[in-house]
Amino acid sequence: MNLQIDSQRIVEELEKLSGYSDVPAPAVTRIVFSDADLNARAYFKGLCEESGLTVREDEVGNTFARWTGSDPSLAAVGTGSHIDAIPHSGRYDGTVGVFGGLEAIRALQRSGYRPKRSIELLLFTSEEPTRFGIGCLGSRMLSGTLTADAAQKLTDSDGKSLDEVRTEAGFDGPLESVELCAGYYDSFVELHIEQGPLLERNNLALGVVTAIAAPSSLRVKIEGDGGHAGAMLMPGRRDAFLAAAELALAVEQAVKSTGAIDTVGTVGVCKVFPGAVNSIPSKCEIEIDVRDIEAARRDGVLRAIHQAAREINARRQTRTSIETINADAPAVCSPKIIGALVRSCDALGFPHQLMVSRAYHDSLFISRIAPVAMLFIRCRGGYSHRPDEYSSPEDIAAGTHALALTLAELSAK
Amino acid sequence: MNLQIDSQRIVEELEKLSGYSDVPAPAVTRIVFSDADLNARAYFKGLCEESGLTVREDEVGNTFARWTGSDPSLAAVGTGSHIDAIPHSGRYDGTVGVFGGLEAIRALQRSGYRPKRSIELLLFTSEEPTRFGIGCLGSRMLSGTLTADAAQKLTDSDGKSLDEVRTEAGFDGPLESVELCAGYYDSFVELHIEQGPLLERNNLALGVVTAIAAPSSLRVKIEGDGGHAGAMLMPGRRDAFLAAAELALAVEQAVKSTGAIDTVGTVGVCKVFPGAVNSIPSKCEIEIDVRDIEAARRDGVLRAIHQAAREINARRQTRTSIETINADAPAVCSPKIIGALVRSCDALGFPHQLMVSRAYHDSLFISRIAPVAMLFIRCRGGYSHRPDEYSSPEDIAAGTHALALTLAELSAK
Repeated sequence: MNLQIDSQRIVEELEKLSGYSDVPAPAVTRIVFSDADLNARAYFKGLCEESGLTVREDEVGNTFARWTGSDPSLAAVGTGSHIDAIPHSGRYDGTVGVFGGLEAIRALQRSGYRPKRSIELLLFTSEEPTRFGIGCLGSRMLSGTLTADAAQKLTDSDGKSLDEVRTEAGFDGPLESVELCAGYYDSFVELHIEQGPLLERNNLALGVVTAIAAPSSLRVKIEGDGGHAGAMLMPGRRDAFLAAAELALAVEQAVKSTGAIDTVGTVGVCKVFPGAVNSIPSKCEIEIDVRDIEAARRDGVLRAIHQAAREINARRQTRTSIETINADAPAVCSPKIIGALVRSCDALGFPHQLMVSRAYHDSLFISRIAPVAMLFIRCRGGYSHRPDEYSSPEDIAAGTHALALTLAELSAK
Repeated sequence: MNLQIDSQRIVEELEKLSGYSDVPAPAVTRIVFSDADLNARAYFKGLCEESGLTVREDEVGNTFARWTGSDPSLAAVGTGSHIDAIPHSGRYDGTVGVFGGLEAIRALQRSGYRPKRSIELLLFTSEEPTRFGIGCLGSRMLSGTLTADAAQKLTDSDGKSLDEVRTEAGFDGPLESVELCAGYYDSFVELHIEQGPLLERNNLALGVVTAIAAPSSLRVKIEGDGGHAGAMLMPGRRDAFLAAAELALAVEQAVKSTGAIDTVGTVGVCKVFPGAVNSIPSKCEIEIDVRDIEAARRDGVLRAIHQAAREINARRQTRTSIETINADAPAVCSPKIIGALVRSCDALGFPHQLMVSRAYHDSLFISRIAPVAMLFIRCRGGYSHRPDEYSSPEDIAAGTHALALTLAELSAK
């Protein structure tokens, strides 16, 4: 099979895509259903149609571009990722899996290959939790992990419901229709940048993912007592922000005390109320993200966080509510797809390793309805979710090439 | 002199004023030059004109309502306060001095009293720092403490300059004209709620202020290093929010370690960047407010904060810039006005005490161009800057009554 990857074209498409953003380059902000997101989607759909793919969108904006196989009655082979980007992040997270997937299909088309199973490229809605507070919105709904009822209760930070927001973006119809039937995909493989430092450290372009870590996130609301920052004396203050500061440091402490390199914890959101320099914070909201490749160890950290909150409350006379936004199970990847990825990398002579994904991906949820695996591409410094996120054109081409060969193997019978 | 205070009318006017707000009652949000603020100003000016006062506004929106005395060539007696309100605060802070001042003038008019010196009621622009990051904008400019040049450099959080914002609100003309000439006021007296617990604790309706504490505020920017919350391992992280959390706790520690009840310190603002649950904070901005009635002790706390920041930076490999927004000198009140206030309280049989103001007031800046003093009204629980801020109609009437008598004494010769 004579597969030629047009790495220049992927780079140009990612460059153009990065312009659909609410902030100036090199940073990217592309929140789901913003104008930037809708324009980026239109660009993607146009490219798919140019390549003869059949495009459909579901009720929550998941976008499917299908290259129909010679036996359309067989379950499809899926690939894809997301294009939404958290505030002030970079241009490769998710997008490489979407545009690399598209180039893999184009390369297979150019080579004269004709798949038996249909190959379907998927753009997932809102992998990032920025707008609705929950990650992998689209894949959760596709897999039935998030029901239509629960999705209807989601609101963004302006208080707009998911239904309002998706309708404004042109997606209506019943959310119940989003869930895919069992057996829709015969296999699913996601190409993605690593977002960690391991491949670079080991001088390898590619990593084949064998499992996806168990992520958990908490939304913590702390209530204290406000007042004038000048006139309220220190004794008897019930400052909600100071309680939050202690809890954030307790998260760091609990994570470090597991002694395991695979345990990570972060407080990435902190909102202070009323938020004036001369006013004691009466309320504070923080969001905590804890992950581990072992669910039991992760849950131990979560217990330690709850215990720290109780201790802080008792001492500072604050009240804390801790809501579990998610505490998902880890995903084990499919040996069949892992095998196909390894064979493809070997056949092409790309140095690679088997590894675990510590980051969250749509494949985590698709694993509940189909066999999945992922292919990681080395990224500079392990940086992600920041403007200097970077993978080289050569590494992206290598990942795309290996993906194309894998899709060929998986769709051939 | 037969002075009758219409306490029902003040309550009704404060009630109506509280409706000019960006949030539902009982909370009040009235940011300078918002529609709520402009509507509240129009309401105030209408009431002044109904009472025959001559209203003028300066180039930054400070509003003067003058009851011309029998000798208009003499320097006026001033009174007044502000009506802007920080987000989600209450209905009494500032407003009681404006509407109490108006009722004091009306009561003097009804009594048949005719002042020799003009009595001028002043509504100060933006006592609260919410929009432009600096408190007492109007009185700083009136007193020449903030120059027109420096004011022109101010921007709000949307990046709009003070000039743009005031022009949109209908205030133009050169900012240089705002500064008052020396001798404009013969004396200035501000009525205000205490915003602290002392009067309630001592079972007294009123407090005569002898000095206004020395406030200081700092804007702290911390830079660390971002990245994906799942993929970046804990060692080597440079989390800007955790550094900010430690610094906030260090502020509390530094303040408490002075051992003086009069030292207070607060972190009321914390902004995390990029602010996503799955992203390590790369930057964090906090605002610190430190006050004391002794400037030297306050400055000791500021030094301890700088030192803590250096220690945290060294340990967490973060970079911190600390900008001093203000570090104002304390104000000593005028014995003449203090005497007039004490005589008025005594004559009316109102229980009162001498006290220090720990909160910031416009009088702090007016003290640089005129003799000032303040009269405090007891407030429930010492609460302020929150929706349940409350002073009773009886206490407000008492303060208004004592103010009226004081204005009469000061304007009589």
